[in-house]
Amino acid sequence: MFSRMDHIGVAVEDLDEAIALYTGSFGMPQAHRETVEAFGVEAVLLDVGESHVELLKPLTPDSGVGKFLAKNGPGLHHVAYGTDDIDAALDRVRAAGMKLIDEEPRTGIRNSRVAFLHPKSTGGVLTELVEAAH
Amino acid sequence: MFSRMDHIGVAVEDLDEAIALYTGSFGMPQAHRETVEAFGVEAVLLDVGESHVELLKPLTPDSGVGKFLAKNGPGLHHVAYGTDDIDAALDRVRAAGMKLIDEEPRTGIRNSRVAFLHPKSTGGVLTELVEAAH
Repeated sequence: MFSRMDHIGVAVEDLDEAIALYTGSFGMPQAHRETVEAFGVEAVLLDVGESHVELLKPLTPDSGVGKFLAKNGPGLHHVAYGTDDIDAALDRVRAAGMKLIDEEPRTGIRNSRVAFLHPKSTGGVLTELVEAAH
Repeated sequence: MFSRMDHIGVAVEDLDEAIALYTGSFGMPQAHRETVEAFGVEAVLLDVGESHVELLKPLTPDSGVGKFLAKNGPGLHHVAYGTDDIDAALDRVRAAGMKLIDEEPRTGIRNSRVAFLHPKSTGGVLTELVEAAH
């Protein structure tokens, strides 16, 4: 069902400082930067193998990532798995009785189609499904 | 420096339930199961692309994962990046002034060589470097 670990999402307070860490100390090339209004974040993608690190800085305190930061501080926010067919993947997890945050895919970074599963169904791990733009 | 996202580590309370979720609902093949005494965990690896999900159940409450579970409940615990030369990678992050949990590599799952970096140096993300056994 999943072709790869698409990315991990990391909540950050200082985007420039985080970029310096990942591109400098860790040597990961910066691949993309985008303000994703629908999710209330400024996001930066770094390349690592077939996956990415996605740095997420909230645009407002009442965004999902803003609330996460206020509660937990910076750190691991979610994991995303890549699929070639997000509709089929959503059908499968729905059929398995999992609770979904997004019943239908939404548009995510780089015009991907994304949907989040509820952590209550995934052992506390906020989990995203991603179908890359074709 | 890093060739891939080697794995994410997920702290779990019920290993069988977590295996059922990842192998069943998510269709990830189980690749390995091992008690890693040095880290105080029973660990299960699931395949996803070139990466793994590593499920971690603490052997005792005073292990690192046991303390994490008591504080945070189940969920994302750490991320690990793969490298072909962990000694060079450690030299690089040390030279960058990062704080290390492991000054020298230790033996991890499947006889890998691993070292953890301190979350204070990595924006709150517990980060592991992994060199697979040759």
